[in-house]
Amino acid sequence: LEAPFADRLIARVRELGHPLCAGIDPDLARLPEPFRRGSMTPGDPTSAEAVAGFCRAFLARVAGRVAAVKPQSAFFEALGWRGAQVLAELTAEARAAGLIVVLDAKRGDIGSTAEAYAAAYLAPGAPLRVDALTVNPWLGLDSLEPFVRQAETAGGGLFVLTRTSNPGGRDFQELDARGRPLFLRVADVLRPLAKRLAGAATPWSGLGLVVGATAPEEARRVREAAPDSLFLVPGFGAQGASARDAVAGLVRGPGRRLEGGIVSASRALHFPDAARGGDLRAWERAVDGALARAEGELAEAVA
Amino acid sequence: LEAPFADRLIARVRELGHPLCAGIDPDLARLPEPFRRGSMTPGDPTSAEAVAGFCRAFLARVAGRVAAVKPQSAFFEALGWRGAQVLAELTAEARAAGLIVVLDAKRGDIGSTAEAYAAAYLAPGAPLRVDALTVNPWLGLDSLEPFVRQAETAGGGLFVLTRTSNPGGRDFQELDARGRPLFLRVADVLRPLAKRLAGAATPWSGLGLVVGATAPEEARRVREAAPDSLFLVPGFGAQGASARDAVAGLVRGPGRRLEGGIVSASRALHFPDAARGGDLRAWERAVDGALARAEGELAEAVA
Repeated sequence: LEAPFADRLIARVRELGHPLCAGIDPDLARLPEPFRRGSMTPGDPTSAEAVAGFCRAFLARVAGRVAAVKPQSAFFEALGWRGAQVLAELTAEARAAGLIVVLDAKRGDIGSTAEAYAAAYLAPGAPLRVDALTVNPWLGLDSLEPFVRQAETAGGGLFVLTRTSNPGGRDFQELDARGRPLFLRVADVLRPLAKRLAGAATPWSGLGLVVGATAPEEARRVREAAPDSLFLVPGFGAQGASARDAVAGLVRGPGRRLEGGIVSASRALHFPDAARGGDLRAWERAVDGALARAEGELAEAVA
Repeated sequence: LEAPFADRLIARVRELGHPLCAGIDPDLARLPEPFRRGSMTPGDPTSAEAVAGFCRAFLARVAGRVAAVKPQSAFFEALGWRGAQVLAELTAEARAAGLIVVLDAKRGDIGSTAEAYAAAYLAPGAPLRVDALTVNPWLGLDSLEPFVRQAETAGGGLFVLTRTSNPGGRDFQELDARGRPLFLRVADVLRPLAKRLAGAATPWSGLGLVVGATAPEEARRVREAAPDSLFLVPGFGAQGASARDAVAGLVRGPGRRLEGGIVSASRALHFPDAARGGDLRAWERAVDGALARAEGELAEAVA
């Protein structure tokens, strides 16, 4: 049996001294030149091979430097069944390299369908098993229950979409529901569930929340409503949020550093501007530079 | 170029005289005896073959009898990459048999990730291309835009989760947001988008809404807010809603029948109680009987 997700994640973040998570968004159209192969048509085997090569090369850069990787399911699904195969291989390789895998799939459904999603991604032995999954709360508490139950028995984690980083995140999430914005109501009702995914070695819960880096004030309010939940903070880097904004929902841990979540960057790390038009070595150097910058900025922000 | 989704769907519904849609939820644990093979472990090739055989047999029963089939993505994803392969084959066979395919995947994401999901399932030539996709509105209007844009250029349809059929559907969807329940606010803000997926031969829009059969009163209110949107109505049968409840959001069409959506049943059709313990012929007879019953009840309800 694996240790609770929250303990595993926080232990790695403490070791590294920063909460950086490396997103993996292998958008076929934006794949850097050195990885491109054949026609780059979504269903082609060569496209899947190109994406696999890119993911493997990126894993080699981030292994040992970040606590977690966050593959974005959409870009694998876009390749058809070969994409699912690439994702499974990537996940296995990442876990073998000591990385925690958070699959950004934003799933959400009801009843036996929610059970099937939970089993697909969180059950031991499942072909696409990951450490944690992003889930969508719109269908209500009973739709999250199968995910919580599966995570509970397998040492898995969840990140519930609470306040997202896009401008439209406001449309429904910030609507005033009887005096309290909806995103805080989501955090409120999840609070009892957090106990069930509580860590043993840390005060954190693996019933995490997604709170975008572009909304630091909202992140502080979510933190008040959900003191134990890990945050997954997207939007650092390419979406314009600073490291300071990204850690707004973290709190002082035992080592006096801010902790309680991970901050993800994707395109800023693996499609760095400095690599444009260059060869493989240029891409590697640019990725290493982008990683060092992101690590440094976040290490300073949590100090 | 294909005709607009709304026109294609409504034309078939009018021909058949009922709005039944056959859900396809090949839950491995519940697969009827005649289809079971090997250990039925999710990652095994034999499990994928068992599901493929089951789906093919069910397609043969429903072809020519329903306007659309609605595969539930979770049950294919649970099989790993082989499941994605089975889903792609099922989709191709269904379309070849004249069935419209609505993939129930409940996707939702932002920016280039939403674009990738939209392309994966709605772009011509995509390996997993379907006719319509269910999507989750929680991330806001800008998260739906890439799906609408893709559907617009490819004659595709969308069904946005508005008021779901599960008890927890109330938790957030029915919260009072300044005097109006949230699910109606979702319908309100989508209304301008409906024009973009409007049919040419019918008054309907392929910017559809999911409105559960278990909430007939809410369905009538959504219909007032979204007069042009097709409804996808799950929850008929196994979830306990009657045919009368299921058509609550439909309105009188040119043939004097109630129209403007499809009503889906899944387990009640493909896992019928009457087939329990029987052989293949018993399952076929039970499915045919369940289909005839559902068609008859719905034909009567829309008369």
